Amino acid sequence: MSAPITLDGWYVYHEFRTIRWDRWKSLSEGEQHFVLREWNQFADEQRKLQDARQGSFGQFIIAGSKADLLVIHMRPTIEELSQLKAQMARTRLFSLSDSTYSYISVVELGGYNARPGVDIEQDEALQARLKPSMPTHSHICFYPMNKRRLGQDNWFMLSEEERREFMKAHGMIGRQYAGIVKQIISGSVGLDDWEWGVTLFANDPLQFKKLVYEMRFDESSARFAEFGPFYVGHQVDDRALGEWLIGVPETN
Amino acid sequence: MSAPITLDGWYVYHEFRTIRWDRWKSLSEGEQHFVLREWNQFADEQRKLQDARQGSFGQFIIAGSKADLLVIHMRPTIEELSQLKAQMARTRLFSLSDSTYSYISVVELGGYNARPGVDIEQDEALQARLKPSMPTHSHICFYPMNKRRLGQDNWFMLSEEERREFMKAHGMIGRQYAGIVKQIISGSVGLDDWEWGVTLFANDPLQFKKLVYEMRFDESSARFAEFGPFYVGHQVDDRALGEWLIGVPETN
Amino acid sequence: MSAPITLDGWYVYHEFRTIRWDRWKSLSEGEQHFVLREWNQFADEQRKLQDARQGSFGQFIIAGSKADLLVIHMRPTIEELSQLKAQMARTRLFSLSDSTYSYISVVELGGYNARPGVDIEQDEALQARLKPSMPTHSHICFYPMNKRRLGQDNWFMLSEEERREFMKAHGMIGRQYAGIVKQIISGSVGLDDWEWGVTLFANDPLQFKKLVYEMRFDESSARFAEFGPFYVGHQVDDRALGEWLIGVPETN
Amino acid sequence: MSAPITLDGWYVYHEFRTIRWDRWKSLSEGEQHFVLREWNQFADEQRKLQDARQGSFGQFIIAGSKADLLVIHMRPTIEELSQLKAQMARTRLFSLSDSTYSYISVVELGGYNARPGVDIEQDEALQARLKPSMPTHSHICFYPMNKRRLGQDNWFMLSEEERREFMKAHGMIGRQYAGIVKQIISGSVGLDDWEWGVTLFANDPLQFKKLVYEMRFDESSARFAEFGPFYVGHQVDDRALGEWLIGVPETN
Amino acid sequence: MSAPITLDGWYVYHEFRTIRWDRWKSLSEGEQHFVLREWNQFADEQRKLQDARQGSFGQFIIAGSKADLLVIHMRPTIEELSQLKAQMARTRLFSLSDSTYSYISVVELGGYNARPGVDIEQDEALQARLKPSMPTHSHICFYPMNKRRLGQDNWFMLSEEERREFMKAHGMIGRQYAGIVKQIISGSVGLDDWEWGVTLFANDPLQFKKLVYEMRFDESSARFAEFGPFYVGHQVDDRALGEWLIGVPETN
Repeated sequence: MSAPITLDGWYVYHEFRTIRWDRWKSLSEGEQHFVLREWNQFADEQRKLQDARQGSFGQFIIAGSKADLLVIHMRPTIEELSQLKAQMARTRLFSLSDSTYSYISVVELGGYNARPGVDIEQDEALQARLKPSMPTHSHICFYPMNKRRLGQDNWFMLSEEERREFMKAHGMIGRQYAGIVKQIISGSVGLDDWEWGVTLFANDPLQFKKLVYEMRFDESSARFAEFGPFYVGHQVDDRALGEWLIGVPETN
Repeated sequence: MSAPITLDGWYVYHEFRTIRWDRWKSLSEGEQHFVLREWNQFADEQRKLQDARQGSFGQFIIAGSKADLLVIHMRPTIEELSQLKAQMARTRLFSLSDSTYSYISVVELGGYNARPGVDIEQDEALQARLKPSMPTHSHICFYPMNKRRLGQDNWFMLSEEERREFMKAHGMIGRQYAGIVKQIISGSVGLDDWEWGVTLFANDPLQFKKLVYEMRFDESSARFAEFGPFYVGHQVDDRALGEWLIGVPETN
Repeated sequence: MSAPITLDGWYVYHEFRTIRWDRWKSLSEGEQHFVLREWNQFADEQRKLQDARQGSFGQFIIAGSKADLLVIHMRPTIEELSQLKAQMARTRLFSLSDSTYSYISVVELGGYNARPGVDIEQDEALQARLKPSMPTHSHICFYPMNKRRLGQDNWFMLSEEERREFMKAHGMIGRQYAGIVKQIISGSVGLDDWEWGVTLFANDPLQFKKLVYEMRFDESSARFAEFGPFYVGHQVDDRALGEWLIGVPETN
Repeated sequence: MSAPITLDGWYVYHEFRTIRWDRWKSLSEGEQHFVLREWNQFADEQRKLQDARQGSFGQFIIAGSKADLLVIHMRPTIEELSQLKAQMARTRLFSLSDSTYSYISVVELGGYNARPGVDIEQDEALQARLKPSMPTHSHICFYPMNKRRLGQDNWFMLSEEERREFMKAHGMIGRQYAGIVKQIISGSVGLDDWEWGVTLFANDPLQFKKLVYEMRFDESSARFAEFGPFYVGHQVDDRALGEWLIGVPETN
Repeated sequence: MSAPITLDGWYVYHEFRTIRWDRWKSLSEGEQHFVLREWNQFADEQRKLQDARQGSFGQFIIAGSKADLLVIHMRPTIEELSQLKAQMARTRLFSLSDSTYSYISVVELGGYNARPGVDIEQDEALQARLKPSMPTHSHICFYPMNKRRLGQDNWFMLSEEERREFMKAHGMIGRQYAGIVKQIISGSVGLDDWEWGVTLFANDPLQFKKLVYEMRFDESSARFAEFGPFYVGHQVDDRALGEWLIGVPETN
């Protein structure tokens, strides 16, 4: 039997931004609607590409003052992510906001057991996990993480079998949340400052707390995980985004 | 007997801000009063919601230059906290100040022993702890914290019994301060950068120092606690806030 | 015999600022003198309060580019420190400078052996240490510090007797500098980001280096001390402050 | 047999920048083309010097919001790198962007076994490695790193033989990527904040992830490597750079 | 025989600055020359004081974007360094640049064996080391450092003899670079954030890399040294500084 392998899918770009409220508030109502219409048009194009399975797109409002907005893009290439960065930079909404954090990674499916005769490119379920549409859950949680390399707690000095055992126990916790929390794991070794990005989706944000807390007692997290910043928020359609920014239902 | 469980209550949003004094001072007296009236109106709405037990609100002046103001909101959902963020951003007071720190968490009641036949939703004392009104003590202290995972001092590798023993000793120190220091513990695993937020209330700020210092010798803190930034300040009503900003009793 | 206790005195506020030289230089000579006169008037009020033993005040020029000015206030309450923050923010000198660091703590006298029949409130020598006038030495050194909690080097896991032994040896070094270096120790557990603030005063700044370096070999520092940023500077009266800012002797 | 030695080649300057999109967008189309033409002229001069083997030059678009552009120069002297810094600062493109990170190092060829009779200066293959032309691969990855000095994992306390064994295993992983990933190792001990800079080139950026991840399990990385920030991007000619900035094919 | 002692000389002020190129470029050629002439006049005064052995002065262009300029002053007192800070702040060149780092320390001569009958104040060679003229080498390297206090690697828990042995081995490496690299060690315990500042001078900057790298394998560095940021650059006279800023030979 062959060893499990890691499959890589679409590249992922998380872009976190804070609104420049002073400038936003200095706009007339008409100008604010103009800003939103331009952004909505951009978002619509992204959703069409998502429908055509050429990419993935989502927009979120983040809680707290670390960020106001999160935009996530997934695309087959790094160049497309950089094209999207420039394209968004040319929108008025981005002129009215500042980048506070970003993350570049690639959707990763670890521990895949390749079976003889199976063509990965043709396996639709597999392809849907590697090139996922943005989940439609109401809430999102994002954090980057490393596996620790510190004295006795050095993940990369474990044998492959030890790591597999740890990951199995880890995965069993995740499976208890099946249907409640959807996770997209993306690898960023060589791409960004942490080794992995974790993006969780749920309809109840309390499930993020429960899941991450439960996992923290799992040895693979307790001894070996190092965590970056955590972001939590909720997904918004164009109408909800506009209402949040303007403060009243957008009637135009 | 069933194991103790953790109960979660309202979501909590701590927003720390510094005044842009240059801009504040450039306003006329009339404009300053206008800024304050607008904010007081917002605060009044929050207090009405608190009276209706639909949320919790407090405003504080923070000592030192890390922050000038702290606003705390508690609400049933993350979305409401983000709505409040945008609503506050639209006030003139927020245009005259900058966010320097924020914290998102959820009120947490650990070690609750569920008794058969007790309906948590109907237990008023319990509900008051999960959905608390803002304490009315004159002073506040806030800090986020983690439980350490470092070599031999790894909280999450302890057995449940060991952790319970540690927490019992820890709790006994807290109980000595009953009636002197009120604490609201909120969990932020999966929500913000630390695992817990601790918000203390007292009429004598020296009690914060005494309590936290005494706890530091407790093994659960000495070996296992990691602390973020500490903030100390005093609670203000609208009149005290205005006087502090304007510098003379507001007579208008 | 009763155990030694810790006494707490006045609250302390260290405010570090850098001059906005561009704006300062854009002022006319008359405007610069106006800025200084306003500040001197504020400083005079502080000195009068100090004479009345209701507070303590000092102003210092800091070396290097981490800060230009340090203002220290001591007062009986946290609220007064926040009042002073707002009062200073309304001065023109503060509009021409930015806060780069601050520290909130409370004068602390550790290891005090309470004797029966002694009324601490009436012990003048003790009160002078808890509510000190600003020392008049020409130079100042400030740094915050923690006691370490790391593996075998965990100060808070030591027995009370071990800690007392360490502190005794530590204190003996300090005593060699009696009359040369005056130190004000202030506690900040629960008040600011480090556990203690150390403010040293001497007429020869080289003594700061000698004292701190000698202490570093003392086991209580070598194994258990963690240090924050260090600031060094010299005390200035209003005339010296003006000359430093304007660059020529103020003749007005 | 003599011990292996380290050879040093050209000095390397990585300059990372973010575009000030607000200012860029405020330019007319003609002005934008003018900015680009000026930069392209500078780039052309660099390429001529590269053709003459007097230096090396490359320009890249970086993914994510840590940086937009990366410009790499290699030159025989530090002074030339500082001349280039000033020269670039005088271009309009640099006025429209901010430096977010930079790195100064020198191309390093470690473990070279000097053979008697070989004149390093005349060995063309060696010289091409010490004074390399910019690789033409489509993608780039940069990160700085240290060798760890922590308790039992202290690289600099290993014997020379131990280090050689570790590096041999390390090199064997690299060799599997021969023809796929080209790496330029540059030393920065005494020159910049980390000990080495690693610049990787490949036509498929996924190979960066595979290579760095595979190496992480190698003991020399697992126990001894500490990594700084990671940057990933793609190489652009003048036309691609212009199109990225302007958003449409430059037709002028 | 008496124990070796540490001698302290002049106070040292390293000031690192980045040019505000936008503002510099907005000046007319005449204004740029005016800025330079004013600075050159200041520099001339410093050089005269150096000739009179009342201080020491040097100006350097730093590579990379961490800083553009480094100005070093040495003086007998801290007050003079603060006077120089204000004096420089009043120059136009400083209005056109920002401070990015600074360091305050005092020239230190460690391990001096005081011999009976020798008057340190009259020993000219010793005085020249304690109050040095700025070396005239073409290149400079600066970094601050600490001696580590971590578990088994605690410099300050070693016996005096152990430390002396380590420093002897350390010094022997330094002596191999005699005539190639000149070093000025300055102590900053109690004065700035690290314990020592190291300023190296050489005509070939590659020697900085060789020296610091070779020392890193020395046990006193491998186990006990912690390093801050590294800066490398070249010394400039007024003409070279002007040419670097203006971009063409200054003909006025």
